[in-house]
Parts: sequence; structure tokens; C-alpha cells
Amino acid sequence: MTEREEEKMIRDQFEALLAGCPRCQTEESKKLITKAFELAHHAHKGMRRKSGEPYILHPLEVARIASEEIGLGSKGIIASLLHDVVEDTDYTVEDLQNMFGEKIASIVSGLTKLEGVFDQSASLQAENFKKLLLTMVEDVRVILIKLADRLHNMRTLKSMPERKRLKIAGETIYFYAPLAHRLGLYAIKSELEDLSLKYELPKIYEEISLKVKESEAKHVEFIKEFKSPIEQRLSAEGYEFEVFGRHKSIYSIWNKMQKKDVPFEEIYDILAIRVIFKPKSLLPEKTQCWAIYSMITDIYKPKPDRLRDWVSTPKANGYEALHSTVMGPNGKWVEIQIRTTRMDEIAERGFAAHWKYKAQEEKESELDRWLNMVKELLDNQDTDSLEFLDDFKLNLFSSEMMIFTPKGEVKVLPTGATALDFAFDIHTDIGYKCIGAKVNFKLVPLSHQLKSGDQVEIITSEKQQPKYDWLNFVTTARAKARIKDAFKEERKELIVKGEEVLEKALNKKKLTINARILRKIMNHHNVSKRDELYFQIGRGTLKLDNLHKVLSTKSSNKWIKYWKLSFGKGGNKEEEQQEPEVVPKKKQLVLSDADEKDQFKISECCNPIPGDDILAYVDEDEKIILHSRKCPVAIKLMSSQGDRIVSAQWESHKILSYLALINLSGIDKIGIVNKITRVISEDQNVNMRSINIESHDGIFEGSIYLYIHNTEDLNNLILNLMKIKGIHNVSRQERIKT
Amino acid sequence: MTEREEEKMIRDQFEALLAGCPRCQTEESKKLITKAFELAHHAHKGMRRKSGEPYILHPLEVARIASEEIGLGSKGIIASLLHDVVEDTDYTVEDLQNMFGEKIASIVSGLTKLEGVFDQSASLQAENFKKLLLTMVEDVRVILIKLADRLHNMRTLKSMPERKRLKIAGETIYFYAPLAHRLGLYAIKSELEDLSLKYELPKIYEEISLKVKESEAKHVEFIKEFKSPIEQRLSAEGYEFEVFGRHKSIYSIWNKMQKKDVPFEEIYDILAIRVIFKPKSLLPEKTQCWAIYSMITDIYKPKPDRLRDWVSTPKANGYEALHSTVMGPNGKWVEIQIRTTRMDEIAERGFAAHWKYKAQEEKESELDRWLNMVKELLDNQDTDSLEFLDDFKLNLFSSEMMIFTPKGEVKVLPTGATALDFAFDIHTDIGYKCIGAKVNFKLVPLSHQLKSGDQVEIITSEKQQPKYDWLNFVTTARAKARIKDAFKEERKELIVKGEEVLEKALNKKKLTINARILRKIMNHHNVSKRDELYFQIGRGTLKLDNLHKVLSTKSSNKWIKYWKLSFGKGGNKEEEQQEPEVVPKKKQLVLSDADEKDQFKISECCNPIPGDDILAYVDEDEKIILHSRKCPVAIKLMSSQGDRIVSAQWESHKILSYLALINLSGIDKIGIVNKITRVISEDQNVNMRSINIESHDGIFEGSIYLYIHNTEDLNNLILNLMKIKGIHNVSRQERIKT
Repeated sequence: MTEREEEKMIRDQFEALLAGCPRCQTEESKKLITKAFELAHHAHKGMRRKSGEPYILHPLEVARIASEEIGLGSKGIIASLLHDVVEDTDYTVEDLQNMFGEKIASIVSGLTKLEGVFDQSASLQAENFKKLLLTMVEDVRVILIKLADRLHNMRTLKSMPERKRLKIAGETIYFYAPLAHRLGLYAIKSELEDLSLKYELPKIYEEISLKVKESEAKHVEFIKEFKSPIEQRLSAEGYEFEVFGRHKSIYSIWNKMQKKDVPFEEIYDILAIRVIFKPKSLLPEKTQCWAIYSMITDIYKPKPDRLRDWVSTPKANGYEALHSTVMGPNGKWVEIQIRTTRMDEIAERGFAAHWKYKAQEEKESELDRWLNMVKELLDNQDTDSLEFLDDFKLNLFSSEMMIFTPKGEVKVLPTGATALDFAFDIHTDIGYKCIGAKVNFKLVPLSHQLKSGDQVEIITSEKQQPKYDWLNFVTTARAKARIKDAFKEERKELIVKGEEVLEKALNKKKLTINARILRKIMNHHNVSKRDELYFQIGRGTLKLDNLHKVLSTKSSNKWIKYWKLSFGKGGNKEEEQQEPEVVPKKKQLVLSDADEKDQFKISECCNPIPGDDILAYVDEDEKIILHSRKCPVAIKLMSSQGDRIVSAQWESHKILSYLALINLSGIDKIGIVNKITRVISEDQNVNMRSINIESHDGIFEGSIYLYIHNTEDLNNLILNLMKIKGIHNVSRQERIKT
Repeated sequence: MTEREEEKMIRDQFEALLAGCPRCQTEESKKLITKAFELAHHAHKGMRRKSGEPYILHPLEVARIASEEIGLGSKGIIASLLHDVVEDTDYTVEDLQNMFGEKIASIVSGLTKLEGVFDQSASLQAENFKKLLLTMVEDVRVILIKLADRLHNMRTLKSMPERKRLKIAGETIYFYAPLAHRLGLYAIKSELEDLSLKYELPKIYEEISLKVKESEAKHVEFIKEFKSPIEQRLSAEGYEFEVFGRHKSIYSIWNKMQKKDVPFEEIYDILAIRVIFKPKSLLPEKTQCWAIYSMITDIYKPKPDRLRDWVSTPKANGYEALHSTVMGPNGKWVEIQIRTTRMDEIAERGFAAHWKYKAQEEKESELDRWLNMVKELLDNQDTDSLEFLDDFKLNLFSSEMMIFTPKGEVKVLPTGATALDFAFDIHTDIGYKCIGAKVNFKLVPLSHQLKSGDQVEIITSEKQQPKYDWLNFVTTARAKARIKDAFKEERKELIVKGEEVLEKALNKKKLTINARILRKIMNHHNVSKRDELYFQIGRGTLKLDNLHKVLSTKSSNKWIKYWKLSFGKGGNKEEEQQEPEVVPKKKQLVLSDADEKDQFKISECCNPIPGDDILAYVDEDEKIILHSRKCPVAIKLMSSQGDRIVSAQWESHKILSYLALINLSGIDKIGIVNKITRVISEDQNVNMRSINIESHDGIFEGSIYLYIHNTEDLNNLILNLMKIKGIHNVSRQERIKT
């Protein structure tokens, strides 16, 4: 493409953006948007994306997503166009402020990543995320544009190097998809999840996609058969409506397979039907949803206890619909979602997009309530950024419960909150003085976990004092912060005391406190903040008895040798010079039989074997730990310690053996154990370490530990075992206790 | 009252009966009913009820209940009028057949109790119940009239002697109330339950009634406040409706107190609101129920997961309604039931009453299905009458589950049914060949208990043979019968073998088989049927090793002495001569401090102490076992071994001590254990046997075994313990493990 052709394409895209935005049609808006585009175009001139495209196409596409898929107006589009200007070019936030005013400048500032060096224990990713949220609290559009940005990056992730892909996909699944969900942007959430899976676990993604495609024709037929009587009935009743049938997203299917530990074939509610209708003018929307539910259950039998009424009580993220699972033709369960066109709009775009534009008081206050919770979390100064990530996940992404006060008022708390969390939610002093609670009139301790619908009365005593140990069970950020507040003064004193204790202990060994020593001690005791270390020493909960041993651990030379041996070629020399390091993180780590196994550690949480999609985490001692990419620990590392992740790959392994665990079950027949062991012993590539089979009432269940070269051999073995008559299920278990 | 006045009263009542029956207004009907009345009146002439009233008033009242409260027509009224003629007078079933035809004669025959002597192990009550059901299967009116009969007897139970009261109240709560429930006669069921409680546990009944009465004014006020906005809304929408508020029945309140082990004050959903409306002509009933649900939840917040949709899927007994629990003013949960007038009619009178009169195919077949299950149960020859009672309770009164076949068809099974029960429900051969099942695609053993909504695929194998051990876990009568069928031949052979084995064993001791010896062995091994004993001996599962010991056990003389000592005076001499027995069952047993405690046994299942409402059960060795009247074991004994029940009463007890157990919980404060033990030790009437208190997270829970004279002392102690600050709950536990 010539430069001129490119320029034309860029201009065309911009025109399309302007035309596609119904809320930017005033002269004033058009002028400002054009000004922003020209500035961004100029600023990014000559820059190209990894794919080779002109860079400006990225902000243009982000603006289009923000406008068309999220529904933002002109301010949102302007900020989208400018979102990378401060980060990647010479323009400053001040420049934007002068040109576009305070609001735009502050949004772009929120979208600009932090730079600079943090202390080893902090996470740059977490700090950036925190910054993003800080601006979001001021203007929710910041996060909406960030989601548009992330969506475009995920759509074009293919051109990124493997290591960056993993980091970005990890962040996406850990934060951005739940955030989109929390803000009610279901379509975007689904796409983000699917794309993450595609890059993290390409094999699995392909496999499921293929199976979905294979059953497509059957599904289309089924949906046609299923919806036809519904359509007839609704038409007869004079409704304007559409009935859509779709399968679950690839990620949802995978997630369900993981959770229930079943193969694709056994996911039985893969199809969902959505009925979207235009309410007739006569009756309230809600009543009409129920009327349609009533018609559908005349046709199909509903599953007991699967009715979910989110029209009487919308979800905290604004979602409204009526869900039910009914028995369709041929014995297939089908989930039905009933919504009006308005409810569907909210479900697809999230009500955050309509923030401040709609006059619906109630919903605004729901979002405001959530933003207040975020604010509170951010205000909590005593947590480091990694702790913050955990709190954020726990408090703001977990599902919510309705808890009733004795007077019948509703409080919304995250799932898992305790009676004490509820006490702090009412008032700080109620929390401090709480000695127990009555849940549905029954006395419970303050650590009691609440359930949605509970009615809770807090019992207080003037004599009660806040306890530091309460931190062990409270889950809400508010309760944690208030408890810490109560110990602020004491904590300060103990930190000073702790530092003195450590200094004395080191002096005895003729040492003084320095960063290296501190890191060793903190790593050993799994403490992430210096103050926390001193505090624990000061309180006496962390003993310095084995100081000598802790300080004498050294990184072994073997590890360094390993790096020299095993890294593949390639990578940009310049880049390597920029980041001097032991482990050349930008290359891919290739693990072959030639490497000795003790040069890396296989993580116990997911126990990958050759053939699995893996990644390598380089820990603070520059040791390499291999994780399966499916592993929840790995996903968290990708999104908080992304810079320590190295892309890794197995070469074909035929010599070394790895430990794997399979579970099997089936009908207990005479001789079945013998058949199982024969299949295993006849397989040259497998050795049994232990076998444990138990039978009860005609069914047997067992687990076998195997030494195996790679996943191919393992899958072959599983296939052979499945051929034994009577065996109903053989599956690999990744979490191994050794 | 003079004879003439009485006669006038009887005639008036009969006229009222005729006038009150809309379905008996043809000349033909009136003539026949009058004929039946005249016959009954003549037959019962001179007989009086225990209350002193002319006997005919009873059949008259039963006929009125059958007509007005159950809704039966002329045949039902005729049979009601005649229901005691065969049992209590010289007329025979043949006489009735000649005068009123086959149908009426067979209904009356079904309502006539069996007479004569049964062998010791059989239960006359159970045999009578079985006979009743046999006729019910032919004509459901038999059971409807029996319920009317029972209701009138319960309403007039006051004039019966204590012992009969217990037997009748026991039968009522064990069978007739659940039967009324099963047939959908909710109003009658509630009244039967309340009356049973009133006579079984008069103190408790009075106590709860009083508390309900005390809160009545408050409740009326609350209901007024609660329903006012609902009424406004429904009126505005143009509905014709009524909103009733009522409290739970006394029995339901008591039942909930028992189940949750809480005092009256903590039953928080004591009020229920019923909205009964006349559907508008435009829309289906179902849709209008949902519309009203929608309006009410606009006003009050519904409790998550408490929505019950019995309009899409009516209960097996025909009940239709929409239930939800909402948060009313002042933080009170309120249950709302939404029904149309038609649904309400069904709920109050049961759809059995409309059997064969309505053209609603579906509902008839629901009742027919149930009657078929009863029939199957009755056809099962291999069970004795006590086993039959258990099967009946389990299969036909327990709540039901919807189980789906792989093709999506629904099968209804009693709660607790296993995968194997389901297999037998499909087909006997599927049951015989069943080796396992897949429940929601997961492999489970055939003993796996199903849950409502499960989709179940049965796995069979040609090699499978039915197993006798399956009887240990199947719960449905059909599965039991089919399994027994499979072993019929084998069983017969084993019974013959078993008899031979026993004969040989006795011969060695120079004894032969006789009824006394058999009873001893059967009692010792807890076997209720002779064939079952032989079968178990034949199979080798019952060993005769300790035959000598079993045969040498004798009733001790002490027991006989006891009867001489302790029975109060009174009772009808004639009656006593009719039933020669060791224990004079028609008198009341009075237990005083003068009696030695080892003269009776205190049942471990309920552990009554002096002051509790008790009854005495005279076992087959004429030993006396005391039960609390609340005890489920006692209730079953009352309704199956009613003739072995003796009414018993404690005299004031101040000398002997009895073991009792209290549980307590509260806030864990320093010194609380000391305070508890001080209160106990300062109480002169109580001794502690053991104390066990544990605290966790600021709450303590404990249990204390006490020696105590009577309930009065125990209640005083509980009151004193409750006064200790920090104690939140003290309650007696009746079931004691010693």
C-alpha cells in the first residue's frame, strides 16, 4: 500500500467513525472530534503497530468500539482518539488540557501507563491498574475506553510476540473481562474471554471451536424446532419479538468443563434461547415478561428451582431478565432468557454507558454505590498493590448477596462476607463493638459467613475492643481498613520496634539492614511489604530464630548455566541491552530432553508435563518455575507479575518421564483391575507408580499415578483405557499431591 | 331434653342437610337420602354417643361435612348416613345392597371395621387401614367419607376416655392428616392436625394458642398495613379479589418450633397472606397470577430463591398457586400465596372431591396414578400389615420428585427414591438388569438417591441378576415387590429349609415348634413374620447359636407386682372381663414417687421426666415403656399398636431424680461457666452429672446432663440460667444418648 493509499484509508475510517456516532452530530462535536483526530494522527505519524499498520488505526478503532459497541458520545470518542498520545508521543497532559479542557485531559491521563522503577516487591501491572481505577472513580468513561482499547488489542493480539500475548491475555481474563461483566457489558466480556482463551490455550480453544462447529448444523435444526411453537404462540398473542438461539461462548463451555471435570460431550446445557420482545403499551414490562414465561412454560416443562427473577430485583450491575431452564424436545435442557428490548440494550452495552445521560435515579445510584466501594478500596493506604489486586477481585467482582437488617432494609455485600463485615457495613462503631450476631434469629459468631436473604441483627457490647485477629476472617475492604485503622498507632510503634529488633539481630552477625538482606527475609517469610515485616517482627509473630539459615541461601550456579544452555536464538539485541537481566525474558524458553530436569521446577498446583501449554515464571531468585497455562496461579502471575513471565515450550520428549495422575471410574466387573493394569503395563511409554481402586455398590473409582513422557503418550493411554468394557470415564487430574 | 325435643332436633338437622346440598335437589335424590336417613335413624335407635347425644347425630354430621366441607353429592351423603349401620347394628352389607344397590353397599363395607382376633404380631389398626384403602381404590369416596367421619370424631373427642383419645389422635396425625393433605384437602388436614395436637399435648397446644391469641391484635394491625397497598394496586388494575391474612395453624407453628428447635417468639414467618382473585376474561389464569406477583413485588422485595411456581407445574395432589416470601413493613418476612378462585376451591376441597365430575383429563389421571400406586402396594402380598404401614407412609405421603428420562419424559417418584427404584419404575426387566446409572451424565451406583430435576439414564447388562441385598436400599413399593418376586421360588425353598433347621435345633433340646417359642425367637431377632423368620434361618443370615439363651428369658415377677401396686381405681368391670389381661389397659397408670423406678422403662428416644405428657406402651412381654407423647415412635405406636397403649400420668415427683439434658449457647464472657455452674449448684432440686462447654470466635455452646425431679424444677432452672447476662438460649434436648 502506498503512503497515499494508507492516508486515504485512514481518512475513510475517520469519516465512518463520525457517521456512525448518532450522538456527535452537532457542528461543535464534529469540530472537536476532528481536532482530536488530527492531533493524534500527527502525533503518531510514522509509528506503526506490530502488525505493520499505521498506528493511528488503533485509536481510530478504539473510538469506533467506544462509540458503536459501548455507546459513548463525543467526549468518549475524543478521549479514545487521544488515549495513547501522552503515553507514546511527546505531548503532555497539560497540552491536552489546553487544547481540549480539563475533562478530556484527565481521562487521557487515567489511560496513560505509569513509568519508572518500582521496588522489587511491587507490581507495575497492579500499580497501573490502581491508577486506572483512581480515574475511573472520577469518570467511569475512563474504564469504558480502556475496555475498548483492550478489546481492540485482544482482537489484534496475533501480531504480538508470545510473551506479551500471555501477559495481555492473562490481564484480560483476570481483570478486564470481570470488569466488563461487573459493568454489565456482556457482549464485550464474552469476546474478551474467548480471545484470552484463544491465546492462552490455543489447542483447547481450537478443539472446542471445532466441536462447536461440528454440532452447528444439529444445533441450528434443534433451535428451529424448539423455537417454532414459541414463535407461533407469541405471534398469536400479538407480540413483536425475536427469538435467538445460540450456544454458550467457547470460554463458558471450557469453564464448565473444568468446573465439572467433564468432556465437551457432557456439557448438557450448551444452548440458550433468548426471547427479546417489544412491550405492548398497556401493561408494565415486568408483567409482560411473566406473561411470556407463562406461555413458554405452557409449551415446555420448567426445571424445578431454576427460575431466576431479575426483573423484580435486577442484578447489581443493572442486568434485568427472567431466566428459566426448560425441558426441550429430545430430552435436552435449554436455558431461556426473557427480556424486553430495553433490558437487552442494558445487557449488551451495560448501564454504565448510560451513566449521567439517563434520568433513572435508581440505577445511577447502583453504579455510584459500586464506584464508592472502589473509592474506599483505593483510599485504603495500608495495602500494597498486590494485596490491593486481591481485595479488588474479592470485593468487587464476586457475586453479591442481599442481606436484610432487622427492620427489613437491604444491604448488598459481596458473597463470602461475614457477620462482622455486615457490622462494619452498618457503621464503624458497630463493627468495633460487635461480639456476635443473630442470623435469622439464631446466635452465630462474628466470623459466620452470611447467605443471600439472611436477616441479621448485630449484637454489641460496650466492653468489646477491636481485635487484630479479625483480619483473618473479614473479607470486605471496608472492614479490613477499619480494623487496621484501629491499630494504626499501635502498628506504627510496633514497626519501629520491629526494625530495632532486626537491626540488633543483624548486628550480632556483624551485618546491617540492606535491600538484599531484607528481600531474602521477606521472600523466606512470604511477606511483601517492608513495614509488614517490621510489624510482624515487632508483634513477635515472626521469629528471627533461623536468620542464619535464611541469609545463607544462595542462587545456585546451575541456574545460570541453564540459561546459557537452553535459550533459543532470536530477539532484538537492542532490547536485551535495555533490560540487563539474568533471564533473557524476551526469548522463548525451549525445554528439551537434553536439559536436566532439576534445572527447572514443575509447579505442584498444575503439574504440567511435556505437551501441555506452559509458561515459565522467573521468581525473585531467578529460578524458573513451570506452570500450566490453565493454572489459576499462572493467570494471576500473568496479570500481576507479567514481567517475570517467560514464554516456554517443550520440545518433543521421549526420554525423561514425568509424574501424572489419572482418575477413572466405571462399572465394577470381575477382572477389571487386571484389565486396567495390563493395558498400562503393555504400554512401553508408561510406568505405574501407584494404583488405588475402590468399588462400592457395583461402581468402581480409582486413581493411578504414572510416569509418562508427554501428553501424547498420556492421551493414547487414556484412549486405550477407555476401550476396556465397563470403564466409563478416564481423566487426567492436574493438581497432584506428592 | 325430652324425647320429643330430641326427635325434633334430629329432624331439623336432617332438613338442614338436605337444604345445604346443591347436588341433591332432584326428587329421586331426596327420596333416596331420606330413605337412608330413616334406616340409619331406626337402626341406631336408643344408642347414644359417649357425650350422651343420640347416636344418629353423628352420621348426620358426617353427611353434612361430606356434603358441605368436602363437596360430595347424593351417593356420598347416603353412604355417610349409613356408614356405621353395618358396624354397630344388626343390618348387614347384603341388606344395604338390596335396599341401596351395589355401590353404596360397597362403600359402607369399606367403612366397616374388621373384627376378630389377629395373631399377636399383626396390628388390627393396620389391617383396618388396609381394608379401607382397598375399597378406596375402587371408589375414592370411601376415604373422603372416612375423613369426614374422622373429622367429626376429632371435633367431639373430648367426651372419649383418655386412652381412646390418644389412640384416635395418634392415628389421625399418623395417617388421616397426611391422607387429607395427599388428597389436597388442606382445610381438613389443618383442622385434623390442630385437634390431634390438642388432645395429645394439651399443655403445649394451650400454650401456643394463648400466645397466638396474645399477638392477635398486633397481627391484625400488621396485616391491615401490609395488604392495604396491595389492595389499592389490584383495585386500580380492575381485579375482583380478596386478600386474607392469617397465622399458621397451631400445629404448623409447633412443628416448626420442633424442627428448628426454637421458641415461639423466634418463628418469624408466622403470618401468611393469600390473594384470591377472579380472573379477568381476557388472559389465561396463569398469566394473571404472574401479573399479580409482578405487582406485589413492585411493592415488597421478594426473598431470593423462595419463589415456588405451582401454576406451571401443579403439585401431584392438584394444588395450584404461586408462592413467594416478601419483606413486609418492619422487617417481617411474609409468605404470599396467589391463587384464582378456582385454584382456591381445589386447595380447600381437594380435587379428589371432583373426581369423575369434571372433564379435566389431566388431573384425573394424576389421582388415578396415585390410586394405582396404592393398588400396587396393596397387591404386594409378601408384606405384613405393619410393613405395609411403613411402605405406605414412605411411598404415598412423602413429597415427590420429577425425574427426567434421557428423552425428557417426566416420571414422578417419591422423595428418597434411588436410581434402582427409577429403573423398576420404567420396567421390571430394566430393574433386574440394572448395573448402574448416569445421573446428569455422571456415573453413579444403583443405590444413588435421586434429586428432583435429575435426568437419569439407566445402564443395564444382560449378565446382571437381581440381588436380594437390593432390598436394603430401594424405597418404592414397586421395586421391593419386584425384587421379592424374583426370589419367590428361592424364598419358598428357603422357608421350608429354615423350618427344618429350626425343628432340628429344637429337637436336640427335646422341644418342638410352638407359638410361644416362635414368639420368643421372633421378638429376640426383631422379626415380625413367621415366614420371614424361617427364610432368614434358611438363608443362614439368622443364626440359632444362642437358642438356649433366647428361650430361657422370662418375664420377671417384679412387673406383675408392679401392676398390682400402681394402678389407680376406676374402669368398667364388664369391660375388664371382656379383655382378660395382665395390664388393665382401660385404667390410667399413675406413676408416683412410691413406685420404684425399675418397674418401668423410660424410653431413650424421648426420655420423658415427671411433668411431661406421657403414655405407656405395654410390650409383648407385658413390660411397660414410657414415651413422651411428642415422640415420633410413640405416635407410630398409637396408630399401629393402639391397643397396647395405656394412658399414664405422673404424680408430683419430689424424691426420685431423672436424667435430663439441656443445651445452652451465648456470648462467651469471662466467668460465664462459673456463673452457670453456680446457678445450678445453688438449685436444691438439681444435680449436675456432667458439663461440656466449648467456645469459638466469641460464642459458646454447651450441654449439661442433670438429675432432676420434674419438669417444673427443670423449667425453673432454665429460667434462672436465662437470667445470666450473655446467655442467649437454653433448651432441653429430649433425645439422650446414655
